[in-house]
Amino acid sequence: MTVIEVALGARSYDIIIEEGVLDDAGEPLAPFALGGRLIVVSDETVWAAQGERLCHGLRPIVASPILLPPGEASKSWETLAHLIDRLLALGIERRDHIVAFGGGVIGDLVGFAAAIVNRGCGFVQIPTSLLAQVDSSVGGKTAINVPAGKNLVGAFHQPSRVLIDPLVLGTLDPRQLRAGYAEIVKYALIEDAAFFAWLEENGPVLLGGGGTALHHAIATGAAGKARIVAEDERETGDRRALLNLGHTFGHALEAETDFSDRLLHGEAVAAGIVCAFDFSVERGLCPPVDAERARAHLAAVGLPTTLRDIGLVADGPRLVAHMMNDKKKEGGRLAFILARGIGRAFVDTSVELPEVDDFLDRRP
Amino acid sequence: MTVIEVALGARSYDIIIEEGVLDDAGEPLAPFALGGRLIVVSDETVWAAQGERLCHGLRPIVASPILLPPGEASKSWETLAHLIDRLLALGIERRDHIVAFGGGVIGDLVGFAAAIVNRGCGFVQIPTSLLAQVDSSVGGKTAINVPAGKNLVGAFHQPSRVLIDPLVLGTLDPRQLRAGYAEIVKYALIEDAAFFAWLEENGPVLLGGGGTALHHAIATGAAGKARIVAEDERETGDRRALLNLGHTFGHALEAETDFSDRLLHGEAVAAGIVCAFDFSVERGLCPPVDAERARAHLAAVGLPTTLRDIGLVADGPRLVAHMMNDKKKEGGRLAFILARGIGRAFVDTSVELPEVDDFLDRRP
Repeated sequence: MTVIEVALGARSYDIIIEEGVLDDAGEPLAPFALGGRLIVVSDETVWAAQGERLCHGLRPIVASPILLPPGEASKSWETLAHLIDRLLALGIERRDHIVAFGGGVIGDLVGFAAAIVNRGCGFVQIPTSLLAQVDSSVGGKTAINVPAGKNLVGAFHQPSRVLIDPLVLGTLDPRQLRAGYAEIVKYALIEDAAFFAWLEENGPVLLGGGGTALHHAIATGAAGKARIVAEDERETGDRRALLNLGHTFGHALEAETDFSDRLLHGEAVAAGIVCAFDFSVERGLCPPVDAERARAHLAAVGLPTTLRDIGLVADGPRLVAHMMNDKKKEGGRLAFILARGIGRAFVDTSVELPEVDDFLDRRP
Repeated sequence: MTVIEVALGARSYDIIIEEGVLDDAGEPLAPFALGGRLIVVSDETVWAAQGERLCHGLRPIVASPILLPPGEASKSWETLAHLIDRLLALGIERRDHIVAFGGGVIGDLVGFAAAIVNRGCGFVQIPTSLLAQVDSSVGGKTAINVPAGKNLVGAFHQPSRVLIDPLVLGTLDPRQLRAGYAEIVKYALIEDAAFFAWLEENGPVLLGGGGTALHHAIATGAAGKARIVAEDERETGDRRALLNLGHTFGHALEAETDFSDRLLHGEAVAAGIVCAFDFSVERGLCPPVDAERARAHLAAVGLPTTLRDIGLVADGPRLVAHMMNDKKKEGGRLAFILARGIGRAFVDTSVELPEVDDFLDRRP
């Protein structure tokens, strides 16, 4: 078992990583089950695969499930309003905790509902995808999508505990697993060169087999994110912005593929990371050998690294136009996360969009 | 000019009370107008009466107005989503501030939109009703209504500044003015017996004529609320709960009149305060003479103090059922704000609902 503290003063909480913790969830969640009950929100697919196991593991706590349709479309005003109606019908009070049991969509949606129902109640995360385990369940960013863009409406609302059971990943589609792995690589490339070297050696194996290597990768990725979040919870400085490595380029690729299953978020991040490193090389910031190592490792585990891999053709102006829909822009300017090498990412606010446009026009 | 600081650490802000501040709003709002522009959200009625004056007063800041229909119906998911679409279409960024220019509905709705668009941007309040000036614009409670009840979805989100111009009240319907006055009386009854005595003497005059007496009443009410909010921002202790004096009884009366214009919120608070004092007398907590003083003053300024005044007949079980829709209940129990006398309100969690039921069944 690994326990990681996210140190946020009065809002501090633990991430508990343990194989099989789902089968014994009643103990770590007991402090949050007022009256011996917990409302569990999940999607129909996760619930069909793992719901019975969780209910069994929660005993003697009684679970009141609310099930939503799977998929990104649930991060909508309509589903949010519906979920809140159901929570209120179950008599939710301010001191209650909701359990978010699912992938990133469930975590983002349930966390946001918890942030605003009764002007705020608690929630705990039990992430069931690798992406959610190492990234979206940690740090308190919650959101829904609106017509103008993804995640443009939401709240910073920290969970009270995160339970991670690597065994639930056994049923995950390998493509989903790889997409989640991209966020682990991202963290290593931001500030942990030794961990990146370890991933180069162990990545292909842990994606195939799990075990202690998978546990170590999840724990290191989640701990890295927890440390960064603790230093800059609301992304008011540059620190938390580093976690957007690969995301600004990746966002443009996701928009260009209509945020569809053609390109998973983690796949977009992988291709976006390669863009960020290559762009850093072009600006004379990063040794070419480091960019090549990043690209080679992502390709080695089967992640897309070029526009061709995604089925897109280079079109700088279109891709740059997508980037401007970013809630983090300031005075109309975008901050780019670039790199001086493996483990040496930094925020660059000096980038002019015509440079990016020209760079993307020449992408393979 | 009166300046009141709401002392909340990094979220501290000033309430500026000054006759005519609307005509000179550009100066106090200059720090919030990035790029020389401010998005101003108002309702069509307020804007028709005061919009031109505000635009003139804001110069050289350029106002980008967004106008919504007046009335409680705008505190809905639909209007919230529409408002956020408009804010995003205007290119709102995290560091921007939105101006909420209107009564309590506009303040609650715009504050909530500011809390969640881009996961939070700033806002300032320019309240145009007496109720909003002394109560809802101070303290950061924002919300919309949902089918299960009023204000059940929202956020604690503090404004960055509040500008109060008592002169805008000159165009207010006298009934609306009296309803706002009820919240001033409420504050005095909670913890300021000397202020209550001053109100007994000056209330009827200031409601008729405004002037320095009105300024003093607004400033004392707003300062009292600011002090209480600073001590218990998120109502986690008993302190902020005191501001609910008259509200639990009042809420039942509002529900019974379908939250319609038959009974304004402030009128419900007035009748609710009289219930709270009379109930305190019945429990042997409060001298009858104090309850009579509270009732007599509210009646003297033309506020309802009995069910008959509201056109309702006593029905304890129905009224108690409405009370149970309260987001502040804990473990199914409601806290009641009762009084040991004028200026001596306290939180009582020992009240059993059958007592309340019986008490209300006998109300005149």
